[in-house]
Amino acid sequence: MKQITGIRKMQQHCATLRAQGEKIGFVPTMGHLHEGHLSLVKRSKKECSPTVVSIFVNPTQFAPHEDFDRYPRDINRDKNLLKQLGAEVLFTPKTGQIYPEPFLTSVVVDGITEIGEGVSRPKHFQGVTTIVGKLLNIIQPAVLYVGQKDIQQAVILKKMIHDLNMPVSVKLCPTIREKDGLAMS
Amino acid sequence: MKQITGIRKMQQHCATLRAQGEKIGFVPTMGHLHEGHLSLVKRSKKECSPTVVSIFVNPTQFAPHEDFDRYPRDINRDKNLLKQLGAEVLFTPKTGQIYPEPFLTSVVVDGITEIGEGVSRPKHFQGVTTIVGKLLNIIQPAVLYVGQKDIQQAVILKKMIHDLNMPVSVKLCPTIREKDGLAMS
Repeated sequence: MKQITGIRKMQQHCATLRAQGEKIGFVPTMGHLHEGHLSLVKRSKKECSPTVVSIFVNPTQFAPHEDFDRYPRDINRDKNLLKQLGAEVLFTPKTGQIYPEPFLTSVVVDGITEIGEGVSRPKHFQGVTTIVGKLLNIIQPAVLYVGQKDIQQAVILKKMIHDLNMPVSVKLCPTIREKDGLAMS
Repeated sequence: MKQITGIRKMQQHCATLRAQGEKIGFVPTMGHLHEGHLSLVKRSKKECSPTVVSIFVNPTQFAPHEDFDRYPRDINRDKNLLKQLGAEVLFTPKTGQIYPEPFLTSVVVDGITEIGEGVSRPKHFQGVTTIVGKLLNIIQPAVLYVGQKDIQQAVILKKMIHDLNMPVSVKLCPTIREKDGLAMS
């Protein structure tokens, strides 16, 4: 598995893959991978080649009362899991490169972001749409894999991609549950 | 010159061109072309092949006090001018296809959009960034040509493209003036 940190390097690598006719499948994550994430990687491995996974704990989708610094991180464990599944590329960009100062642009989906989870986390979905928009522009995958567990997020991302004519298909994948029925998270 | 109206047809045509290794130059316009626009087309013709020009009078960048319906339109005159310059592709999408209901997404650049021209036209630049973002996603050109005359717009578009990692270079082209020195507009 190839790990890439620089944005420009990632863009170049993906451009080369596309020029070779490869169909890139993309799974964006914030790391701390569980069976839910891994099911997306497996689905991408079946349908695309190569599979690109990003691990980026995105500060702009945390609310002020949520603890960004305490979000669980274990990159070595995550890397081992992804290697076992045969993911080809891991993208681990740095926060300072993703949000260089002054960072002024956002992608906003109105209406469906202010309800549900958006009530207690007013800027959360704007953080999600902006980072996923950026990652899609960097990687330019053929297919984006997202879990149905975060159904509001999935609907919002589909809407963004449709409204902005972003050249990627979205596949929603089933929720993976613990033995007791609880959705993995 | 090939004229395309459908978004999907345009995406497919541009994808084919890129797959053939072509370097697409793109000039977005609202039509009613003058020497300023034509200088962008000429520059693109020198540096890229093919040159794609869009004509779309974008309703979302007009303020309520501005008259969208009375914006000058003369598609036959514009087409003749573009043919004379050898532009290869003209994209003339329909408003209903660009903004299907409900259209909920926008690209917003903060800070530099609320000053200058943005004071009297508060949603103007949001309309511009969203439509140019959409056109770039549809066409995926290598180079975007914009005029320095609309310097605030040019700076905002460059910032959007940089912040969102959109895979396109931006070239700012000199202002073209009437004999009396007035910028063409």
